[in-house]
This record gives sequence, structure tokens and C-alpha cells, in this order.
Amino acid sequence: MPELRKDPVVDRWVIFASTRNLRPNDFALDEPAGAPVDRPCPFCHGNEEHTPPEVLAYRERGTAPNTAGWLTRVIPNKFPALRVEGGLDRRGEGIYDRMNGIGAHEVIIESPDHERDLSELSLPEIERVLDAYRARILDLQNDLRLRYILLFKNHGARAGASLAHGHSQLIATPIIPQVVAEELEGSERHYRLKERCVFCDLVDHELGDRKRLVLETERFLSFEPFASRAPFETWILPKRHVAAFEESDPADRSDLARILKETLARIRRALDKPHYNYVLHTAPCREPGLRHYHWHLEIVPKRNPLAGFEWGSGFYINPTAPEEAAEYLRGITL
Amino acid sequence: MPELRKDPVVDRWVIFASTRNLRPNDFALDEPAGAPVDRPCPFCHGNEEHTPPEVLAYRERGTAPNTAGWLTRVIPNKFPALRVEGGLDRRGEGIYDRMNGIGAHEVIIESPDHERDLSELSLPEIERVLDAYRARILDLQNDLRLRYILLFKNHGARAGASLAHGHSQLIATPIIPQVVAEELEGSERHYRLKERCVFCDLVDHELGDRKRLVLETERFLSFEPFASRAPFETWILPKRHVAAFEESDPADRSDLARILKETLARIRRALDKPHYNYVLHTAPCREPGLRHYHWHLEIVPKRNPLAGFEWGSGFYINPTAPEEAAEYLRGITL
Repeated sequence: MPELRKDPVVDRWVIFASTRNLRPNDFALDEPAGAPVDRPCPFCHGNEEHTPPEVLAYRERGTAPNTAGWLTRVIPNKFPALRVEGGLDRRGEGIYDRMNGIGAHEVIIESPDHERDLSELSLPEIERVLDAYRARILDLQNDLRLRYILLFKNHGARAGASLAHGHSQLIATPIIPQVVAEELEGSERHYRLKERCVFCDLVDHELGDRKRLVLETERFLSFEPFASRAPFETWILPKRHVAAFEESDPADRSDLARILKETLARIRRALDKPHYNYVLHTAPCREPGLRHYHWHLEIVPKRNPLAGFEWGSGFYINPTAPEEAAEYLRGITL
Repeated sequence: MPELRKDPVVDRWVIFASTRNLRPNDFALDEPAGAPVDRPCPFCHGNEEHTPPEVLAYRERGTAPNTAGWLTRVIPNKFPALRVEGGLDRRGEGIYDRMNGIGAHEVIIESPDHERDLSELSLPEIERVLDAYRARILDLQNDLRLRYILLFKNHGARAGASLAHGHSQLIATPIIPQVVAEELEGSERHYRLKERCVFCDLVDHELGDRKRLVLETERFLSFEPFASRAPFETWILPKRHVAAFEESDPADRSDLARILKETLARIRRALDKPHYNYVLHTAPCREPGLRHYHWHLEIVPKRNPLAGFEWGSGFYINPTAPEEAAEYLRGITL
């Protein structure tokens, strides 16, 4: 059974999951990413028996569950960091705190295509991925033990991916993750002071001076944040105030697919197919309608590994101003 | 001029320093680390003119500054993240905050030997490195603009090092870094509640049950923390309560050299020369004698890059229990 442990000094939780040691890996860390592997890819059509049974799949009409013919497929992670079965069983040990590693860990296989990156999928394909995100969030929120659902994508070995076939992941946790808790606190402080959402203020500011803007669509904008942690870090925000991603309607998701595809494509062109992460920052489970929080997507290309200074301080060093990065991204012809 | 910018939502500062783009790099990221380079190493004897003039050097008798003959040498970083000259000039821009990137960024070249890792240096050589750390901290604390001095080591490309020759770095900042601020807050909360230092409690607990203990010397212990973020994360703490590293006396540093050398050597053997970071966590500038804070060294071997989940959540996933790692490290014969 995985276990959650809290650091005794700071609000940092660690998931201990020994099965994660057993994961297969497409990438040898000292080799160029994308080197071919012999093993059949468990995320490709026809290899469905190599994964746990699907929890959701959008399929071609008439195809049976757990066989080929799916378009987007969601499965439990075969090497989960957290497990669904059991109680939390919070307990102490001297000065330490721990609980069972209850939660969910799922993989969203974005398309049957082994090669294409998300930015290379068609708009309807990307919309389907976003629909799958939302469906899984809505379903998992019925489990009252879960307090947060973190949706993210690791693309490439340097971004922590262990398989090359395009996929996203979600981890649902019984605790609100520290990074999100800090955002909730910071945005609540701003709201108390000004009775405005700080993210709405960001939207206004960035659409106003446009120095850091990358793209604007009917309902969304993408921009390089003022205090970007890394070159070409890019955020996508809905213009309208919405706390939770799952509150989006189909037209929102269609517009989001558009800005996501084009933003990723520009980053891909600018940095020559970088490894990258994106993380969906959304409201905690069953807290839609928060007035101070505003969902958004944070995209971070991974070039250099995090050094000791970043690790030890929480301070980041970024050699590229977001204003320069934004200008560069705007100038790209796709 | 480098610039410091604050995220408008959370307490995260980013240093923008465009000169960091110009750094030479021993390591091509997609090649095995340690591949030979043609360029002369600026940290080797005889190449002193390739670095800025030294700010401190322990030398063989009769050798002139900025020539060969030094044993440990401290120089300003040629591509500094922060600069010493100027005022902070804090200012706003709409909802954003920024200030000049005032601070210091120095490199401690540990020995003239290009090849040897810190754990392979002799005890007197390691003591000399620790003496250099302390001397620089004491000197920089005279600058009242600086509030924190972060000492750290990046060993190997995956840990963020750009040069192979063994070195540590320090970055002195006009702000207390977030990670340290959280430790200060957490330990102060513990002190208010219990009138005890939480790190002293850790020392007692780990010396008591010994499950996570790696080594114990007269004045120090090294152990795998209860909520280790990564396999073989190891902390070294003084047994006696001391808030700031610079309060250590020569006998402390001699004993620290011993436990540091042997702890690093065991990790090196266990993980086959891993890339690693260590970070000195110490009290803020000019705050010695804090009753709730206790300096320590955090060592983290780097195997996998940080994935999206860690980046986006502040949650870590660790496949190896600290109890197992500690047992393994204790069992190694050096």
C-alpha cells in the first residue's frame, strides 16, 4: 500500500510508492530521447491487454471495450502512485505524520497515434482529450475522500515521461497540494484586499499592454507570465472568471483546443521540439464558484535540469525575459 | 542589470539574468556526462586569468594572488545571477513588483584537482572548503542589503552543473528564499507550541530509533529524512542546537568534514557516482542564536528529472522508503 508522509517542518507531502520502481522506460537517460525501443507500446492499438482495463474510452462505433478502435482512452496507471482501495487511516509516529496512499492515478492516452505530439493532433482530437479530462474530473469528484485532482502532461524524458506515446496523467489526492494551496491563499488575500480576482487582474493587464501576450482567441489568452520561472513558460487563461476547469462548456473547450494547439505549436517551433510539462491549475474538488480562484494551464518547456539553487531556495533563475519570449513566439509563422 | 520579479499570486521570486545564457557548458545535455571538452578548464591551476579575480584563496606560501598555487579559491561567478553594485530600487508596474537584482554570486573551487569529487578529497581539504564557506558568509553578512546567503553544490549535468571541475556556489539575496522562509515559519510554529526546536526533536528521534540513521559522529548525524523527496535524500545535522552554520567552531568543521566525506562516499558507492545537489540550510543573515532554527545540510541525488506532477503540485513521489535507503547505506563497506 502506498503511503503519504508529511515533512515535520514544512507543509510538504511525499508519496511513497515502491511499485514506481518497476516502470518500463522508453528512454535511457543518457541517450537522446526518442531512441527506438523493441517492446510493443502498451498505448498503441492492439496492445490493450498490456494495460489495466479502461475507465473511459471514446471509441469508433461498434468496437468493444479494451480492444482496438478507441480514439481517446483512459486507464488506471499500471504503476500507480496512489490506490483507490481502503481508508486514509491517518496516524502519528513520534513527531511524524503519515496516512495511507489513497487516491487515483490514471493515464489519458490522447490518440492511437504513437508519434504525434498533442500540438499535431486535429482540433476535434484535442477537444476529445479535453472532454476526457473533464469527464474524469467529474467522475472522481464523487469520491469524497479526494480533495484535489491534478491533471498534467509530461512530454519527453527530460520532462519526466517514461513512455513516448502521447499521454496525459491525473493524480487525485486526499490533500490539497502545496503549490495549489499557496495559489488559493495568495488569491484569497488579494480578494480580501481588493474584492477582485487576481487572475482577472492578470488577464486585464496582459490584454492591455500586450507585451507578454502570445495569442488571444474569443475566450482565452496565452501569455508569458511576468515572473516566468523558465524561458518560454506560458500560461493559458480563460478571459471570463471561472474557478474550475470542469465548469467549462463545449464552446469553451473548443476554443481552448484552438489556443492550446497553436500555443504548443509555436513553442515547439521556437525551441525545436522541446520536452515540456503542462499542469492544469483548477479549484479543489467540489469547490466550483470560488470568487478568488481562476483555473488556468501552466506550460513549462524543460531545457536545463533544476539546479541546487532552485531546489534549495524556491527561487528561480531565468536567462530570458518573458517580453522577449513573447515577441519571439508571436513572430513565428506556422 | 539583473532584475528580481515577484509572482503576483504566490511568494515566488525569479531572478532574470540574461548573461546566464552565455555560460560555457562542459556537458551537452543529450550526451553522457563527463564527455571530454577541448576548452581549457577555467578552474584548473594556470588558467586563473580566465576567471574574475579571486575574493578569497588559501594558497601555498609565497604564491601570488590569481596565479597557480592555490588550494581552495573563491571567485565571483563570471556569469552572475545577481550583482553587487547599486541599490534595490523596489518598484511596481500595475499589479507587478520588481527590484534590481542586487546580490552576490560566487564560486568556491574546492581543490586544484579537476577530477576528484568532494568525497574523494582528504579531510584537511574538505575542512578547507568548509572554512571557505564560513569565511565568505561572514564577509558577505557585512553588506546590510543582503538577507540570505545560500550555499550549494551542483555535481554533474543532471544536477545543473555546467562545469565538471569540483566546485560549490553561493548566491546572496536581498530576500529570504521561499524554501527557507517556510522552514523558519514551520519551526517557529513548533517552538511556540512546544518551546522546543523541531530539528532538535528530529535529532532525538533519529538517534533513538536509528531506522533511518546513516552515520553518527561525535557532533553530527546523517540520516534519510522521514519524508525524503527522492531516493537516498540525506540530511546532515549537528546534534547540538546551532541556528547558523557560521557559528560552528574549527572542531565542528573538522567533524563535519568527516561525516560529509563518508556520507557522500556511501551515496556515491550506492548509486554508482550519481549526480547530486546539496544545499546548506542556515539562519538568515545576522540572525544567529535563533532558538527555533537549526542549520543542516540537505543532499539529494538526482536520478530522474522532476516531472509535471512534482512541478505542478509541490508533492513528491518517491519509490524508495528512507528506511530501506538507510539500511543500504549503512551496509556499504568503503
